[in-house]
Amino acid sequence: GFDNVVEMPTPILTPEVAAALDAGRPVVALESTIISHGLPRPRNHEAALEFEQLLRDRDVVPATIAVLDGVPRIGLDADGVRRIADDDLAKASVRDLPILAALGGSGATTVAATARLAALAGIRVFATGGLGGVHRGASSTFDESADLSVLAENPVTVVSAGVKSVLDIPATLERLETLSIPVVGYGTREFPAFWLRESGYQLDWQVSGAAQIAAIMRARDELGARQGIVVANPIPLAQQWDPSEHDRVLAEAFAAADAAGVRGKAVTPFLLGYIVDASGGRSLEVNLDLARNNVKVAAEIAHAWSALSR
Amino acid sequence: GFDNVVEMPTPILTPEVAAALDAGRPVVALESTIISHGLPRPRNHEAALEFEQLLRDRDVVPATIAVLDGVPRIGLDADGVRRIADDDLAKASVRDLPILAALGGSGATTVAATARLAALAGIRVFATGGLGGVHRGASSTFDESADLSVLAENPVTVVSAGVKSVLDIPATLERLETLSIPVVGYGTREFPAFWLRESGYQLDWQVSGAAQIAAIMRARDELGARQGIVVANPIPLAQQWDPSEHDRVLAEAFAAADAAGVRGKAVTPFLLGYIVDASGGRSLEVNLDLARNNVKVAAEIAHAWSALSR
Amino acid sequence: GFDNVVEMPTPILTPEVAAALDAGRPVVALESTIISHGLPRPRNHEAALEFEQLLRDRDVVPATIAVLDGVPRIGLDADGVRRIADDDLAKASVRDLPILAALGGSGATTVAATARLAALAGIRVFATGGLGGVHRGASSTFDESADLSVLAENPVTVVSAGVKSVLDIPATLERLETLSIPVVGYGTREFPAFWLRESGYQLDWQVSGAAQIAAIMRARDELGARQGIVVANPIPLAQQWDPSEHDRVLAEAFAAADAAGVRGKAVTPFLLGYIVDASGGRSLEVNLDLARNNVKVAAEIAHAWSALSR
Ligand SMILES: [Mn+2]
Ligand SMILES: [Mn+2]
Ligand SMILES: [Mn+2]
Repeated sequence: GFDNVVEMPTPILTPEVAAALDAGRPVVALESTIISHGLPRPRNHEAALEFEQLLRDRDVVPATIAVLDGVPRIGLDADGVRRIADDDLAKASVRDLPILAALGGSGATTVAATARLAALAGIRVFATGGLGGVHRGASSTFDESADLSVLAENPVTVVSAGVKSVLDIPATLERLETLSIPVVGYGTREFPAFWLRESGYQLDWQVSGAAQIAAIMRARDELGARQGIVVANPIPLAQQWDPSEHDRVLAEAFAAADAAGVRGKAVTPFLLGYIVDASGGRSLEVNLDLARNNVKVAAEIAHAWSALSR
Repeated sequence: GFDNVVEMPTPILTPEVAAALDAGRPVVALESTIISHGLPRPRNHEAALEFEQLLRDRDVVPATIAVLDGVPRIGLDADGVRRIADDDLAKASVRDLPILAALGGSGATTVAATARLAALAGIRVFATGGLGGVHRGASSTFDESADLSVLAENPVTVVSAGVKSVLDIPATLERLETLSIPVVGYGTREFPAFWLRESGYQLDWQVSGAAQIAAIMRARDELGARQGIVVANPIPLAQQWDPSEHDRVLAEAFAAADAAGVRGKAVTPFLLGYIVDASGGRSLEVNLDLARNNVKVAAEIAHAWSALSR
Repeated sequence: GFDNVVEMPTPILTPEVAAALDAGRPVVALESTIISHGLPRPRNHEAALEFEQLLRDRDVVPATIAVLDGVPRIGLDADGVRRIADDDLAKASVRDLPILAALGGSGATTVAATARLAALAGIRVFATGGLGGVHRGASSTFDESADLSVLAENPVTVVSAGVKSVLDIPATLERLETLSIPVVGYGTREFPAFWLRESGYQLDWQVSGAAQIAAIMRARDELGARQGIVVANPIPLAQQWDPSEHDRVLAEAFAAADAAGVRGKAVTPFLLGYIVDASGGRSLEVNLDLARNNVKVAAEIAHAWSALSR
């Protein structure tokens, strides 16, 4: 028939995650591409463990998500965490999930796939580093992250430090508006640019705390909305990348891409690789700090949501 | 769980609207941004009352929609109508609804938010002035109204005088096609351009009356479609803006925007403000006339729908 | 109310198709625009009968789809097949379906409308020639086929020979990614370009047979996905158009369109007409060969799906 939504979806939850969800206790989803592709070994394994510990320290159950041997896993055991850090996993977006499941493959889930699997499992809060978006040059390449379209139909609140400045930030904000995805600044009216607190683009809404976000989530449900919610959470001022250094390295990166004749889809990975190298590790430290900051805010939201929805 | 569509959505219907819907009697939704942002005070209050009266005179229950103090209202009392005319309300699109609800804010609903709330309430016919669309320059700005994507998934028949000529009309028609939203000309094969009967762009379908539209609505339901229906209803010839005056003022407006260095999202509001000023009030009269004309056609469709679906 | 999906949709299935679906036996949907608009008379009638016979020879029930006199038909009788070949039918996309139904009109269904009606009827495998996509110049015209957005929300596996090289192939592949539609190469890692086995663009996934595709379909259902699946099935090497001749004719076609001042939506039909004429019938033979090849692969997938889902 036409309605293919099954009652017992494939993903397997750890007993800890399943018990927390059943009891309405706080759970936060974590993605695995930041571990597999965003950070170097062995630093990435430490980070995966640290993000989970940050949540446990706050009485929140972590649900790191990945596909292992064809099974979407909601929550990983110690070996699973090791595998997303040590194995050479491909990135898995939403459209890769049925293929990996059918072929028995493994993959590190992107923001899109993590949000989708979290939604399937009933997890409502998700902490990541930065959101995917519209790539520079997308008017000719059409390169737009599935993160946006997946958030348009999955009820997950994603805490991110905005969008990397290598992407087209104003176009990304426009696409979020077209897709009716709410974007709220966490203690700010300005959309952050990942490594930096400020992108130069203003938001319509600022919230002052987790309780407000939980109330927005409840109103969203009452209104029968399909969309998730983007919480734009800037890195603390003391931890942000020095803006002038950021601007210099970014300009160098664009010039290097141009000089190397890099085009189309290859541009963004080239820029990100260049930035890590040229910043002497500084961009990675900032990346870790903003991710930690997002995990902490997600923990607060998960508590507020648990209190409101129980 | 994953299915968050609640059985008793937040919006509050007036007893009059609720009774009419229960009995299958004709109801037409009206938006509030045309009142709060589209017309000057106190003319806007008179217009809001007049649009409602036009419906009542035709035995149709008006349901003017707005968010007041956090509550989406389907149908307004006298004080509510006064507030959308007199208060300084922000525009509320679909993504603002849960935020306003959570924070207790107020907002005038756009075409998108009005269509969404009408659909939630079970109202199937909606009269507005002009539909939002793809903005000129959207290939670089990505500025596309949420009106289109919201109509792609809410079963509301929107009667409009097409799309303002300051937008990118052919791109808007393409987007409507890509999103599988039916567009029918009401007594015309040509898509209208708001102030003008003709945009230069042809439609695939022309309907000759309200009964045909009601039959399309029923077929749409039988086919399990998600999309709404756009009824393109040109202003009567005697009331349209003089085309040569329109073209002259529009050209001046674009030149003024260029000279003032207006860019991106700021262009459309600049153009609309310029046009109102430069036309010496003529564009406002046309705006009122086409809105009245849309309300009358919507009343006919609501009667035909009531007869067919009861 | 808000949920307008009816239990008994309008489309009428032939007894043969209905019985096969009830019993879980293999069924493959076929579109009608390839017959009405893609092939010349009387060759098109022979092709329609041949595609059906290819399926019957493989113990698969064909379900050629069209709208006749307002009724969406899932499976055609002999007179229906004759009509899609001989009558001057308009193309019917998804948004035309309720209009044709209400007005009693007839239309040949596009990939989008065929996929939608197949999904409504519970048919899960569909063979076509080429998929619609993003048109060249779409960054300014916004001309993108509804095929893509319809496949984003209908659970049909479409077997095609990729996308015609007159379209913007890389942009089409990006849009499929943004919409989370899985694309798998059938025995190839390279996306085909309709008349040619190779487009120059690589796929993330290659499958080696129908059983793998059926397994992906089952995983898709278990994951509650809305998307269909694109199976990119290149024409056999011996049957493809000679690449150098293809490139020469295509370059001539673009030059002719430019010289004739053809713009916007008119470009693709102009190019396709030019190519048929300039190739001396060779492009049509290739078109028939790739369509036959897609029908045969679809038959295998329908058998594998029947075995897996029964
Ligand atoms: Mn991409
Ligand atoms: Mn906009
Ligand atoms: Mn098109």
